[in-house]
Formats: sequence, C-alpha cells, structure tokens
Amino acid sequence: MSKRPLILVTNDDGYTASGIRNLIDAAKKYGDVIVVAPDKPQSGMGHAITINNTLRLQEIEVNDVYREYACSGTPVDCVKLAIANILKRKPDLILSGINHGSNSSISVIYSGTMSAAVEGAIEGIPSVGFSLCDYSINANFSACLPHVEKVIKHVLENGLENGTCLNVNFPKYKGEPYKGIKICRQAKAVWIEKFDERHDPNGRPYYWLTGYLQNPDKENDTDEFALSDYYVSVVPTQYDLTAYQAIQKLKPLE
Amino acid sequence: MSKRPLILVTNDDGYTASGIRNLIDAAKKYGDVIVVAPDKPQSGMGHAITINNTLRLQEIEVNDVYREYACSGTPVDCVKLAIANILKRKPDLILSGINHGSNSSISVIYSGTMSAAVEGAIEGIPSVGFSLCDYSINANFSACLPHVEKVIKHVLENGLENGTCLNVNFPKYKGEPYKGIKICRQAKAVWIEKFDERHDPNGRPYYWLTGYLQNPDKENDTDEFALSDYYVSVVPTQYDLTAYQAIQKLKPLE
Repeated sequence: MSKRPLILVTNDDGYTASGIRNLIDAAKKYGDVIVVAPDKPQSGMGHAITINNTLRLQEIEVNDVYREYACSGTPVDCVKLAIANILKRKPDLILSGINHGSNSSISVIYSGTMSAAVEGAIEGIPSVGFSLCDYSINANFSACLPHVEKVIKHVLENGLENGTCLNVNFPKYKGEPYKGIKICRQAKAVWIEKFDERHDPNGRPYYWLTGYLQNPDKENDTDEFALSDYYVSVVPTQYDLTAYQAIQKLKPLE
Repeated sequence: MSKRPLILVTNDDGYTASGIRNLIDAAKKYGDVIVVAPDKPQSGMGHAITINNTLRLQEIEVNDVYREYACSGTPVDCVKLAIANILKRKPDLILSGINHGSNSSISVIYSGTMSAAVEGAIEGIPSVGFSLCDYSINANFSACLPHVEKVIKHVLENGLENGTCLNVNFPKYKGEPYKGIKICRQAKAVWIEKFDERHDPNGRPYYWLTGYLQNPDKENDTDEFALSDYYVSVVPTQYDLTAYQAIQKLKPLE
C-alpha cells in the first residue's frame, strides 16, 4: 500500500488543456495522481450535474502508478463519478484547473473549475481550484507553478476548514514572478451582459453572450485588488449559501 | 405607463410545466408578468451559462398585457437574456419555479430553479425560487399558492436584503393545508451518489447518476426540519461564497 497522498485532478477546459497538464505535473510530486476530467470544454457549467442523460467514461492511460479518464459530463460529474465509482478510497486532495481564464469575484459562481472544488468540499475532501487570468490556449503557466506547489503542500499539511475550499487565481503573466499570495474575500463585482443578436441564413435571430466585469468594490481586501497588484489571490470559498444575517429580518413572514 | 410591478417568471422544468403555470397565475395578481423560461427541462443545471454556443428565443405569446418566451438556454441564461435584451426596465421581482422536486439543503447548489433566483440577486433584483418536494408531473400545487402569494406580497412591500434571495420549499401535499412558514438555514446534508453502470448494445459501459440525500444535521432550525414538520421552509440565500471565518487561519500561506 502506498503511503503517498491520493490526489484527484480535474478541470473544466477538458483533459487535453495545457492548464491541467501543468497541474498534473505539479501534483505528481506530492502524491499518487488520478485524473478524471471532461472529454471536452465545459466552461461556464457552474455546478451543473447530468441527471437526465447518461455518462461515458474513457480510459486514457491506466497503469500501476497513474490513471487517467475522460468523462462526457460536467466537472462536478467528474468529481462525483471519481469518488463513487473509480477511486478505491476517498482522495486526500482534489485539485481543479489550472483554468484558462479568471474565476475571481462573482465568476466563482459560473465556474466549472471552482464548482468541482466546491463539490470536493461538499464531500468532505480538501479541494483547491486554480485559474490563470489568461484565456489563451498558449497561456504561460510557469510562474504559477511555485505557488501551486506551495498551496498543495499547505493543504496536505494543514487541511482546510470544514465546509470550505480554496479559489486561487493568478494574474496574467507579465514576464516576472508574482509578488506573492494574498488571502482575500470575493469582490462584489458583477458581469454586465449584452447579447449580440445575429440572424441565421434563414433570417431567424440567435444570440451570443458577451459582457464585461464591472467592479465597484474598491476595498483592498478583495481578490480583484490583489490580482490588479500582481499578487496571487486565495479566497476561502463555502457551499453553505445561507445568508444568516438576513434570517431575523424575515421573521415577520412566519 | 403601468404602475404595476414588473415581474419576470422563469423555471428549470421548461415553460410547459404545471409548476410554472401555477406560479404565473399567482404572479399575475400582483403585477405585469413576463415569462422567459427554458424550452426544455434544465434540471440540475446549477448556475450554468451558455458561453460556447448560441441561444434561441421563441415568442410563445406576445400581446399588450402579457409576453412569454421560450429560450434554448439554462435558467440563468433566461434571466440574463430577459434583463439584457427583452425587458425595457429592470423587473421589480423575479420568481422561479414552482419546481417539481425539492431544492432544500445542499440541493440549492445543483438547482437551476434556485440559480435563476441567485442570478436575480446578483443583478440587484429581489428574487425568489419556489420548489415543491414532489417530482410528479401531476404534483398538487394548490396548497402552495396562498404561501406563494404571501411571499410575493412580502417581497414587493419590503424588498430583500442586498445580496440575498429566498429559497422557498413546500412539503409534498398530504391533503391538508401546510402548518405555516418557517425562516430557516440550509441543512448540512449531502447527496450520497451511486452511478448505475450499464452496457450499451455494443458492450460499452455507460453510467446513470442515482443517489439519496443523507442528513446528519438534526437541529430544529434547518429547512429539512421544517419540511419534515409540514412547514414551508424559507432560507435567505446569498451569492457571496467567501468563507470569512476561514480567512485568518489561512494567513500563514501569504
């Protein structure tokens, strides 16, 4: 029996993405790695699960020290299927990413990368989602790696508070090392959407989602602030959505 | 110009579902209603949005006092598209549901119904998701309606705390009126999954998600407790996922 930690790696860009390849290489230094990742891009899937359809699972590479599977479902499906049917024991750590694109501030809620980490937390497993604020397929992940390793080591040694996971975002690489890590809160930003209306060859309209992030939250303890200052942002993230501060005020409704 | 409130109604079971028909009828008593709902079931879609594909919008019924559209996207897409491209002003209220099936405790995070309400809160609009703990197509919604109307009136008159929406769940109807409403917190329950492995006609495996809700949280202030006691549960629900209590403990990672 191996005494090395068992690490499950997933993402939402699909198992062939450069981001997950970098994350797998980092994870292998710290434990036995099993990869269960989507077989195609699943960005923006949030905490979606596959209820009304079936899932497929394809073995990509299976040997004594390393196993990898591509799954037809969402990132959350990958975590659930790995834990329920693939892994022989609960993993010691779940890593998701490294996402090609930001998952800071409100984007956490739309993010398949982060939803995989949140699902890990729900299942009681220390979990971390990593994202680089660079959508390019050829994004440079090299500056992320020392910090990825630092976070992996910290979480393996200290665990995480019950009911939480970590949302780690890296600024777009500017040719020099990041300044360091900042523990932050989620900025109160919001996406301002426009749907681009076009017409198909038959003259019928269709819509493309476009938009930009509007951040009126200028305090210096947010993830957006840290990222703009070239720090790595780390936000402890929870799945208990209860707004406890609002309970008392609603009592007249009883 | 109408002075009646503008109410956007959506759901995740699709615009033909009995639950949304009941909700539309209740909403019409309190304002001008516009429906933008999925054109097919979107259960379990969580906070998914459509990024890499286009959306279609079909006018179902459009006249001077009532408009209804079926959208090819997720519940969150419906809310975004309604606000960005269909409504001439921000709605005063967003209602989602009534869902055919429970969205209490941890199910809130997988729920398309509730994600539509959370999206409303993100956009600064008082929003409520309603769900009946009965998956049947022919579920009996009649006992829900007085409480639906009570919640609509309360929210139109008092608004909701910034950054929050309401998660309202009704017990399965037992032939008598519900006992009343309880303001609750989300129970710390978890889905225990099994994936049923089957084989297609070519001998290749595929998987169906199955599972049951395990609730070790036996306190009397949870939504699960209220529902089991035949009360309507109301949980104030927020989209700030920051685990503030965990920030200090993570500082050594900086």
